[in-house]
Amino acid sequence: MENSMTNAANDVNTISVKDLTLEEKASLTSGGDAWHFQKIDRLGVPGYMLTDGPHGLRKENSETAALDMANTVPATCFPPAAGMSSTWNPDLVREVGKAMGEECVQEKVAVILGPGVNIKRNPLGGRSFEYWSEDPYLAGHEAVGIVEGVQSQGVGTSLKHFAANNQETDRLRINARITERTLREIYLPAFEHIVKTAQPWTVMCAYNRLNGVFGSENRWLLTDVLRNEWGFKGIVMSDWGAVHDRAAALNAGLNLEMPPSYTDDEVVIAVKNGAISEEQIDMMAQGMLELTAKAEEAMSREGFVFDVDEHHRVARRAAQESIVLLKNEDKLLPFAPNAHVAVIGEFARTPRYQGGGSSHINPTKMTTILDELDERGSHYTFAPGFTLDNSLQDAALTQEALEAAKSADVVLFCMGLPEAEESEGFDRTHLDMPAKQLELLSYVAKVNSNVAVALSNGSAVQMNPWQDDAKAVLETWLLGQAGGSAVVDVVFGDANPSGKLAQSFPLDIKDDPSMVNWPGGEQTVDYGEGVFVGYRYYDTFDVDVAYPFGFGLSYSTFDILDVKVEATSDTTALVHAMVKNTSSVDGAQVVQVYVNPADTTPVQRPVHELKGFKKVFLKAGELAEVEIGLDSRAFAYWSEKSNNWRVVKGTYGVEVATSSRDIVSRETIALEGDHYYAPLNEWSNYGEFKADLFGAKAVEHMIELGRAGELPAIPEDNLGVQMFLESMPVNSMAVLFGKDGKKLTQFLLEDYAAERANG
Amino acid sequence: MENSMTNAANDVNTISVKDLTLEEKASLTSGGDAWHFQKIDRLGVPGYMLTDGPHGLRKENSETAALDMANTVPATCFPPAAGMSSTWNPDLVREVGKAMGEECVQEKVAVILGPGVNIKRNPLGGRSFEYWSEDPYLAGHEAVGIVEGVQSQGVGTSLKHFAANNQETDRLRINARITERTLREIYLPAFEHIVKTAQPWTVMCAYNRLNGVFGSENRWLLTDVLRNEWGFKGIVMSDWGAVHDRAAALNAGLNLEMPPSYTDDEVVIAVKNGAISEEQIDMMAQGMLELTAKAEEAMSREGFVFDVDEHHRVARRAAQESIVLLKNEDKLLPFAPNAHVAVIGEFARTPRYQGGGSSHINPTKMTTILDELDERGSHYTFAPGFTLDNSLQDAALTQEALEAAKSADVVLFCMGLPEAEESEGFDRTHLDMPAKQLELLSYVAKVNSNVAVALSNGSAVQMNPWQDDAKAVLETWLLGQAGGSAVVDVVFGDANPSGKLAQSFPLDIKDDPSMVNWPGGEQTVDYGEGVFVGYRYYDTFDVDVAYPFGFGLSYSTFDILDVKVEATSDTTALVHAMVKNTSSVDGAQVVQVYVNPADTTPVQRPVHELKGFKKVFLKAGELAEVEIGLDSRAFAYWSEKSNNWRVVKGTYGVEVATSSRDIVSRETIALEGDHYYAPLNEWSNYGEFKADLFGAKAVEHMIELGRAGELPAIPEDNLGVQMFLESMPVNSMAVLFGKDGKKLTQFLLEDYAAERANG
Repeated sequence: MENSMTNAANDVNTISVKDLTLEEKASLTSGGDAWHFQKIDRLGVPGYMLTDGPHGLRKENSETAALDMANTVPATCFPPAAGMSSTWNPDLVREVGKAMGEECVQEKVAVILGPGVNIKRNPLGGRSFEYWSEDPYLAGHEAVGIVEGVQSQGVGTSLKHFAANNQETDRLRINARITERTLREIYLPAFEHIVKTAQPWTVMCAYNRLNGVFGSENRWLLTDVLRNEWGFKGIVMSDWGAVHDRAAALNAGLNLEMPPSYTDDEVVIAVKNGAISEEQIDMMAQGMLELTAKAEEAMSREGFVFDVDEHHRVARRAAQESIVLLKNEDKLLPFAPNAHVAVIGEFARTPRYQGGGSSHINPTKMTTILDELDERGSHYTFAPGFTLDNSLQDAALTQEALEAAKSADVVLFCMGLPEAEESEGFDRTHLDMPAKQLELLSYVAKVNSNVAVALSNGSAVQMNPWQDDAKAVLETWLLGQAGGSAVVDVVFGDANPSGKLAQSFPLDIKDDPSMVNWPGGEQTVDYGEGVFVGYRYYDTFDVDVAYPFGFGLSYSTFDILDVKVEATSDTTALVHAMVKNTSSVDGAQVVQVYVNPADTTPVQRPVHELKGFKKVFLKAGELAEVEIGLDSRAFAYWSEKSNNWRVVKGTYGVEVATSSRDIVSRETIALEGDHYYAPLNEWSNYGEFKADLFGAKAVEHMIELGRAGELPAIPEDNLGVQMFLESMPVNSMAVLFGKDGKKLTQFLLEDYAAERANG
Repeated sequence: MENSMTNAANDVNTISVKDLTLEEKASLTSGGDAWHFQKIDRLGVPGYMLTDGPHGLRKENSETAALDMANTVPATCFPPAAGMSSTWNPDLVREVGKAMGEECVQEKVAVILGPGVNIKRNPLGGRSFEYWSEDPYLAGHEAVGIVEGVQSQGVGTSLKHFAANNQETDRLRINARITERTLREIYLPAFEHIVKTAQPWTVMCAYNRLNGVFGSENRWLLTDVLRNEWGFKGIVMSDWGAVHDRAAALNAGLNLEMPPSYTDDEVVIAVKNGAISEEQIDMMAQGMLELTAKAEEAMSREGFVFDVDEHHRVARRAAQESIVLLKNEDKLLPFAPNAHVAVIGEFARTPRYQGGGSSHINPTKMTTILDELDERGSHYTFAPGFTLDNSLQDAALTQEALEAAKSADVVLFCMGLPEAEESEGFDRTHLDMPAKQLELLSYVAKVNSNVAVALSNGSAVQMNPWQDDAKAVLETWLLGQAGGSAVVDVVFGDANPSGKLAQSFPLDIKDDPSMVNWPGGEQTVDYGEGVFVGYRYYDTFDVDVAYPFGFGLSYSTFDILDVKVEATSDTTALVHAMVKNTSSVDGAQVVQVYVNPADTTPVQRPVHELKGFKKVFLKAGELAEVEIGLDSRAFAYWSEKSNNWRVVKGTYGVEVATSSRDIVSRETIALEGDHYYAPLNEWSNYGEFKADLFGAKAVEHMIELGRAGELPAIPEDNLGVQMFLESMPVNSMAVLFGKDGKKLTQFLLEDYAAERANG
């Protein structure tokens, strides 16, 4: 068996779609079973395995169907994206990816399904813990590390869910109605960046419809944009059960239906009757052969065993950097190594370290906070404080917790959202923390004022008013299997927190701009907030938040100095800054660059958008230079009118910041822009003619001829007419000038054309 | 000439389109000139006149083109809609309409262009002063009075601008992208109510595009909805210059192009080559003949002269009821008749009584606040305080104002937006009051604490923090030619203010839900806030406002008692209440009824919506009963899925209120709903099957057969599978059940069909 697979794989590189029968081609476009590609024994094409991800391998022991969510092979559980995204450290993400790739090689998994880079449109989204950010730049520039890391090991990733799968409610059918500009600026760029930068072997289409068309049947997405515009070379597979029409999917550019619906015979018929062209089925099947060929080398490696302990250490570092210090009054954190700590909260013993659904990993090992404290021999008293179920608060647990708190120097209060509240498959309905945890916290704070909270949750939660009961708050997300150690590392200062929020924490979910359209109904959801997602909305409309996007404290202090911004071309710029660790503690700062739109802009744009960042590790007292380049996309908006990115001429602001609300420096630069002048036509209005280089000349000539009596005269001193004229398409001159209006229209268009031709 | 017109008109009733040549038919579908219908001398079809409205006649003296905005025949200038809409008094609106109709008869105007019932989507909208409300129920139920009143005189109205003309920015071209539900629930109902109730003779199409189609070419709007669904019997004319393609417009159902573009020959050709059908051109031309016939009687009346003084009195009453008392600390208002009043502010001498643009009237007379004070012999000192232009504040004016304020008992501070800030043709960019007025107000308040502000403005303005400088604030809008008298009437208590806001006053324009998409760009605007316009947004999302929709104080006090709500059918209800004037002053209260959506609703709905109101005039101490019926539309939402109005079964709230934020009583009623059960199909999900009467039986049978081994078994204890299944369209069973999935799908559909057939 091993030999035959090796032989088969050797052949794969030389097998082309030309060697296949129509039936064989059709067979390749659906899985062999729920977790394997289709094999072709006749030609020795192996049916390699693929498994769920994205923050570790979810390889099922049973191989028949997608039914068994619990029984999986052990694998390292790295922090889910909710945590990883807070690292703002693409290099670290790449290390995690590399480790996952090694686990794939050991487990003979050719493709791991992930990363998922859908935008956190609304923190209530049920899969927020699996997604990276509310910001597409950050999501793309972090998650690309997973793809690069995994694929460095000769196995593939699946960038998902393409596209606009931003909620769980009715996700299998819902029609997301989104303008093209919003898609291009918010919901596609993370995919675009990763495709262009790292060529993921596969992309997974989304279940939902986008502007009426299912993800599996959307040729605009899967072929026009993904392949033709972005240059994607890999294959597109379906999310599990996303295909409803094999022919439509194949024609759209979907190579692979997963799991198989056993309708390959229908595909054969569709090709025979012309519903699918020979060329298209060949292209789709050829992609599957090429994918198999790419995996061959890694799948042929025998005896490879990954280093479980080393991967656990990677998971621990990733978890450390995922932690965000939100608050630290009186420098309560870090605790002194010999402090007597009351550890309160069931989460210290029974951590939430991942979310529910298809991403659920069976970890290789599991370190809780209590495990790590024991390991260190720390001086602590544990009280579970509350149960994780919905039962009423137990007075005895309260009593025990209060006694622990009274007798301790400091309190580590481990609270969070119970597992049942966050999962694939449903959206949350509120951001509230469980009442019984908050109640206990308030009692604890009364008996010991030195409370540090460690929060476990996969997405934003309501922070007020309960956070007044804590001097310090650590957002510890879901941290994977080494999370317990990582939290203790940070609590005692063995790791210095450096995480930054990848999503805004609103004061109230009612403030979220998508709420008027969340989660839609009748199988439809309108993305009415357009590009104003997350901080783009809060910052543009001065809406207070609990914690802003990009925010996170450190045990160190930093200065950012000597900021300089220079245009490097008509549409690009370079930012220089010096960053200094002004404390006696080693630490890391994330220099964030936001761009303000041009002073005059043809569309509503957010007040600023993240367009660059750099995490800088600095020893105590160290000074370092940071350079961040801003490419033309940093200044561009998507013009639906031009069907392209546009950089308008004008003055832009460039902010160097440590969060979207903590702007250290704001410089302005003048950019010449892309020199694109939309041609004027009969639908252009008089004002646009006047504002155009050539159009203005035509208007001037027309007015002159009017004065001379050779054309109808423009009543230059009639303000009402002038006002009306200004916004009037020039094809409507008859409204103001009667029969003679047409002469004016004709003159303007001809004279403009002549001026433009003369350059 | 008079005789021939009379003869011609006598003939019109018997002339049909059958008597016309193709050229004559074509000619009827555009104007004779800018302000006349086309005549046909051969048949004695007169070309009657039409003029701008909507709050009075704007009949131009020059008849050649639309160029002369200033030179018009005197007519009574009634309060623009900004004012009239605050009356919440349809009977009064009807009186105004009747008076305008009389002026049309005298002036031989067959059709007056108005009312304009576009929704005030955003208070920045440049024509807000001409439109009625942010609420479609209120707009429709008030403005219908204009149509009824005018048309009672045998002349016609033009309901405009149909539809979705809610901004001035790029109004001639802009494409408003709006979901059908939002159109049906927000932007169309005012038109719908008036068409169904009062049959306006004409409807005017909007300039803008709606979901890609120009108002003049939108057959869905002009024929499918307006004529076929609503039963409109009149003609549709274009806004001035809104036609870009005669054939497309005629085919869409537009009878009349205004002003003429002199392209009737093109229409003839289009009919000859089949681009327009004979049937369609006949229908369009026949409409024009019928319109002319309807106008004949009134246009034949000779020697009719309207009563200028009586109309001025109507304008005065309308203005009185338009005034909204926003604030009245220490009962500063009304002033004692003998009080020494410092009247400060140029607006007292130079009132803003209407807005700019096509609605601008040349009034028959004009009473300023100072005129009225003189008329009464009141004891006052006037200081203009500031100029209305943009010049810097004049220290001498300030000094004069402060001296007047110091020596007076009370101050009437007359401030407002200068004329240049509000007009057809452009949108406002902010809500701020002019800084120099606010500065003067703050100085005046320091020397005399008894300041009452009279505000002149066409739409909401920023109220804070300046209103702290005034004990009383009267929103006096633009009040037409009798506005000065009306303000003085209210100030001295000769009229008791009874106006209620027809639009919310936000704390800040940034709070407005449309701002993320306002005013759009690149010729496109997205109505992303959907149905959450105005108070529908503020009240649903708990956003504080300066003054809520429906708000207004009185010199009287009122109690609302004994509220009862009863269902009168499965989809209708009746509200009873007693209203008592608990003061010693005669006055009026507006009983407002808001409906909360059903406890379970398939789409996002506002927390409440206005569905009935009744203005009640009560003598001091008087008690009266009010009954307000709620028809099925009061409970319905527009279902895009069903393409119809739906009243779901459930518990609804019915609020009796005096503003959208002052809820006096909230009752609940259970309604059976419309008994509509959408048929299930293969795209329905498992959860929907379980929730359906017949579907649930099919699911039960399927599970039983699974237990018996006759169908694949549903893993009833696997929560992951159950969760996934719940939202899965039943055509996707293969995802979970492999090849056998199809059997389950087939069984479910067949068993459901059988159960439904059995009833």
